Amino acid sequence: MTSLDEKQFLRALGQRLREQRQARGWTQDQLAEKCKLHRTFIGSVERGERNISILNLRHMTRVLRLSLEKVLAEQ
Amino acid sequence: MTSLDEKQFLRALGQRLREQRQARGWTQDQLAEKCKLHRTFIGSVERGERNISILNLRHMTRVLRLSLEKVLAEQ
Repeated sequence: MTSLDEKQFLRALGQRLREQRQARGWTQDQLAEKCKLHRTFIGSVERGERNISILNLRHMTRVLRLSLEKVLAEQ
Repeated sequence: MTSLDEKQFLRALGQRLREQRQARGWTQDQLAEKCKLHRTFIGSVERGERNISILNLRHMTRVLRLSLEKVLAEQ
């Protein structure tokens, strides 16, 4: 179902989220706790393996103090 | 599970998508066909009743020739 283009999009999005988490010095566990999401969920999003819902993505970006727009700006 | 803030976010997002569809003179059926999604799905997104996945939202915005960033810029 997921096209190559979509896989690349999810991977790039996950990479941006990972970079922002790491820039804050947070582990996946720490981010997961702040977001009240599971660490394995965070991991799968960062690897681009998950077609995240808009509300979960918005929640993660808020915890990271990022705007949705910024994290979704395609390169 | 969904907070008032999240409901308002989904409603505003759905409203922006509806306006963009209407600006193109397309019915929900026409947009649904172009997106290969069901009309009732489009309707529920436009009413802010659905926590849409990022890939479906991206797909809808591409068919509408909108950027994800623009449609997600919070007012």
